[in-house]
Amino acid sequence: MGWAFIVAEWSMTFYKRCQTAWAESNSLVCVGLDPEPGRVPSPLDTLGKQQRVLAFCKGIIDATAAYAAAFKPQIAHFAAQSAEPVLAEVCAYIRTQYPKKLIILDAKRGDIGSTAKHYVAEAFERYEADAVTLSPYMGHDSIAPFLDQPGRGVFLLCRTSNAGGADLQDLPLANGRKVYEQIAHLASTRWNAGDNLGLVVGATVPADLAAIRVQAPELPLLIPGIGAQGGDLAATLRAGLTPEGGVFINASRSIIYASESENWQAAAAQAAQTLQDAINAQRQP
Amino acid sequence: MGWAFIVAEWSMTFYKRCQTAWAESNSLVCVGLDPEPGRVPSPLDTLGKQQRVLAFCKGIIDATAAYAAAFKPQIAHFAAQSAEPVLAEVCAYIRTQYPKKLIILDAKRGDIGSTAKHYVAEAFERYEADAVTLSPYMGHDSIAPFLDQPGRGVFLLCRTSNAGGADLQDLPLANGRKVYEQIAHLASTRWNAGDNLGLVVGATVPADLAAIRVQAPELPLLIPGIGAQGGDLAATLRAGLTPEGGVFINASRSIIYASESENWQAAAAQAAQTLQDAINAQRQP
Repeated sequence: MGWAFIVAEWSMTFYKRCQTAWAESNSLVCVGLDPEPGRVPSPLDTLGKQQRVLAFCKGIIDATAAYAAAFKPQIAHFAAQSAEPVLAEVCAYIRTQYPKKLIILDAKRGDIGSTAKHYVAEAFERYEADAVTLSPYMGHDSIAPFLDQPGRGVFLLCRTSNAGGADLQDLPLANGRKVYEQIAHLASTRWNAGDNLGLVVGATVPADLAAIRVQAPELPLLIPGIGAQGGDLAATLRAGLTPEGGVFINASRSIIYASESENWQAAAAQAAQTLQDAINAQRQP
Repeated sequence: MGWAFIVAEWSMTFYKRCQTAWAESNSLVCVGLDPEPGRVPSPLDTLGKQQRVLAFCKGIIDATAAYAAAFKPQIAHFAAQSAEPVLAEVCAYIRTQYPKKLIILDAKRGDIGSTAKHYVAEAFERYEADAVTLSPYMGHDSIAPFLDQPGRGVFLLCRTSNAGGADLQDLPLANGRKVYEQIAHLASTRWNAGDNLGLVVGATVPADLAAIRVQAPELPLLIPGIGAQGGDLAATLRAGLTPEGGVFINASRSIIYASESENWQAAAAQAAQTLQDAINAQRQP
């Protein structure tokens, strides 16, 4: 990765970087890296605990990079194993071996400005992520320090894929919008001065995704919930796609644990390619 | 810390543990541990980077424990310095040296259930915290794995001390409540089966705190915003106190950076004691 590339990379807005990633990979797939100690494939059993996580993540990255636009490491899976150094190594591996793939750090942080700048350092300096997931609960000044970073992006939780997502996000406001619609509205207007704000919307709620596209027709969406969580891919794409792509369809467990025995890399590659093909078939019918 | 003490500790509900901590310390003060690399007192300059953070935190803990019911390490301040092992050591130090003080890990996490269990491991196994701050945005199933831990507690973000706190939290819902009132309502009713759920409410918004006490008359409140953020202590106490105490009044920067030179420990002790006295004067007039 030469110097000219690095300069070009950070001089682009995050939206432009998303579009480039979709186009150059011919894929809207995001591979979620959720290493679970008990599910690492058996051929890696001989390695030490942290080395096993590292080898597993690198093996999944190598197997699936050809079919993916982005990788999404989920930080709790590393933190619970005291494996932050492994996460840093995983991110560095993606940056050096697959520099055109985006790294979306799934951290769902959110705190007051003086603390947020430390989370900025965690996500963008320590792990060198291209984007990070954040919670909107504490409002604009809790996300502003992230939005100030040139070329980097934020995916703000909007309508999440879990059952409890409805508890707060679905509540109707006095202004006629639901809470998640209000977040989508703010994220596509007042909060988005730098064209670097996207939304997290679950594939388990495609009707809500359509409502979000009304508020935010052009924002990049990070869409979990396909695969293990049982989201509806076809309905999700109908509601979410834009001409450039517009969405990162994330699958974690259904790809990385496609097999837990000898053929784990081939099975992960196959699962990623199948998802890529299913998405592309609907993009260009 | 003997075995009998450990057994007794985890067989109490978290509320009972709060009441015990308030009573035995005769204090409602929570000391926030927010180590900033550029603000560690100059006498520690000769130490290596991570050792400096450790010595600073231990020194603050030793200086202020006599005046505090709890400590609140803020995890981003450690993560930005790759200092998770230091945070683990700081928490272990509190548990062994000051076992009656509660450790509230300020992490503001929140994710789907399968990921939340990894954050549970981070907070309650790795750092052995007594309680953790969480975001309510993803709903009940994102906090349930934390609430299932006997004796541990959760402080849920409700009405935060920052300016942006109003952006979402203050919005009126169609049901007549504001968003933060709805969270307080859920936290004191349906979500609180185990008497281990509290709320985070900023001292910068005492009128909102009064509205929260209507919804949640008995929940323990973690109240930041006194000190550097300029919150109103007297109004906060009028609105928040219960007969047992009911609140942890957190101060971070105004205590731990009371002095950055030779007298840093004495100055921190003085700031903590002054806050303890100011609170107690209003409790027993």
